[in-house]
Amino acid sequence: MAEFSGKREYFVGVDLGGTKILAGVFTPQLKCLGKVKMSTKPERGPEGVLERVTRCVKEVVGECNLKPDDIRAVGIGAPGAVDPEAGRMIFAPNLKWEDVPLKKALEKQLDLPVFAENDCNVCALGVYETELDPKPRSMVGIFLGTGIGAGIVLDGKPYSGFNRTAGEIGHMVLDVDGPKCGCGNKGCFEALASRTALFRRIQTAVKDGQKTVLTDMLGPELTDMRSGDLRKALRRGDKFIEQIVEEAAEYTGTAVANVINFLNPEVVVLGGGVMDQLADEMMAIIIATAEDYALPGTAKGIKIIASKLGDDAGITGAAVLAMRESKER
Amino acid sequence: MAEFSGKREYFVGVDLGGTKILAGVFTPQLKCLGKVKMSTKPERGPEGVLERVTRCVKEVVGECNLKPDDIRAVGIGAPGAVDPEAGRMIFAPNLKWEDVPLKKALEKQLDLPVFAENDCNVCALGVYETELDPKPRSMVGIFLGTGIGAGIVLDGKPYSGFNRTAGEIGHMVLDVDGPKCGCGNKGCFEALASRTALFRRIQTAVKDGQKTVLTDMLGPELTDMRSGDLRKALRRGDKFIEQIVEEAAEYTGTAVANVINFLNPEVVVLGGGVMDQLADEMMAIIIATAEDYALPGTAKGIKIIASKLGDDAGITGAAVLAMRESKER
Repeated sequence: MAEFSGKREYFVGVDLGGTKILAGVFTPQLKCLGKVKMSTKPERGPEGVLERVTRCVKEVVGECNLKPDDIRAVGIGAPGAVDPEAGRMIFAPNLKWEDVPLKKALEKQLDLPVFAENDCNVCALGVYETELDPKPRSMVGIFLGTGIGAGIVLDGKPYSGFNRTAGEIGHMVLDVDGPKCGCGNKGCFEALASRTALFRRIQTAVKDGQKTVLTDMLGPELTDMRSGDLRKALRRGDKFIEQIVEEAAEYTGTAVANVINFLNPEVVVLGGGVMDQLADEMMAIIIATAEDYALPGTAKGIKIIASKLGDDAGITGAAVLAMRESKER
Repeated sequence: MAEFSGKREYFVGVDLGGTKILAGVFTPQLKCLGKVKMSTKPERGPEGVLERVTRCVKEVVGECNLKPDDIRAVGIGAPGAVDPEAGRMIFAPNLKWEDVPLKKALEKQLDLPVFAENDCNVCALGVYETELDPKPRSMVGIFLGTGIGAGIVLDGKPYSGFNRTAGEIGHMVLDVDGPKCGCGNKGCFEALASRTALFRRIQTAVKDGQKTVLTDMLGPELTDMRSGDLRKALRRGDKFIEQIVEEAAEYTGTAVANVINFLNPEVVVLGGGVMDQLADEMMAIIIATAEDYALPGTAKGIKIIASKLGDDAGITGAAVLAMRESKER
């Protein structure tokens, strides 16, 4: 490690996903000064991907007119089981990684302290630190995107469980006879309410002759459909899409009730790409369903809220991680 | 409080249920010296029930040839939301209680320190302290009886959540289109795998003409059916009961997988009256189903075991509570 030469007051947060890498520079007040996005190219393997993470970090630092000496630490949220003490990726199904020394490799390449955590835990930490005041003793952040995951924060710290895989709420079975999930089981939350599940249901219905304004907007194949397109369809009064989104909100509300009944956290936050686009339409239904399914008395005073961080939850939380961990040193 | 006159080395654990009160005297090594059981008589209201708890405690102390001065503290597990700091029962649906000062009232009547906690948390604590070695960092105890509840122990302490109602796993929805639950929703774990659910399914099938040895054993109305009768029917090779028990084990395995995916505890313990009688038949199916439904890698090394404490889990855990809390004083 080089001697301190700059003031080292900034932090870099990295969100490493299966398709993209997002990096942002943050002030100690968690203001984002700039972001850089890059494709992950997972086919290049751990070495190739980590080289891209390094490039992404260096680029965003330069983009913000800073030098590496201005950075105190780097935090990274990674999609899988992470041992935060060792900074080691235990396994990451989406990247097909096993036992990758994330922290060690990046510290060598960046010549900066690096701290790693599971991506959903990092997102939850970002929400906890920047969106919740006063701080709750317990929170669960549920993130709906291509897949569905959750991060648990207990007593201000990410809770990751025995195998560092806590928060896999996407594979909580809600309907034992439900649609098949990518994991091989049936009726997982993710198979009912993720973007992938919504899009699949829409595409199947369209093939079966269902009318929707989405085909006018995107063509008969619904090419490049995004969560934002669903919002546009809703604004145009598309009843079919309304029903699809309502159903997803009801499943999400049921999952929230399961969480309230079982872990009884003080706050449940909903985030991710789907919520970023559809929170206005989904939140009221999610809350009503959750309160309906939670046992009497268990949901009293528990806040169910939507995160406004959107795609920035990961980099924000990763910056929080970098800040916390570098302070503790 | 009277001055110390006896050696005060024993503890009393009380399990307060909707139908019965069980109290036991324990040595500091958690050996049970004797037990006394009494009906709860919930219709007499909090005052009447607490008077019976007091009587039960005094009786078991006498039964063990001890005097009140030999008791250091009393612990009690109660069926509902308990604020352990204040020793106050926030609410108890089965007893129809709201805001009952459990600790204060019993301390006055018994002239001994009393500590209260939720019944499932207390059961989990009993399992944790007497059946697990080495101690796991996190465990979930799932108790299958008339209803289904869970206790969560994190870092050696009961975790009860924001409203002190964590662990209500009986109302985790596993099948959104499943059978109606007592709570008003559909497809709750409790509506699929509790003793009540099993008995209801058997009774309905018998009414519809299903043959089972249980009618030979108990008569056509299946009067006073108990979990032990199911075990006897299985031993006699009753295929119908085998199927009912298998289904319950599969639902239980699915719930265990949901817990492993979401909270990822080091140990999952199954207990309660149903397990006490049917563990031999159910455990292999529960474990296989849980490992099947848990995401790859998440269940690795996690122990799924049956408690041997049976009906004594509550009094044992309550004694542990009394011992721990009176030490901290």
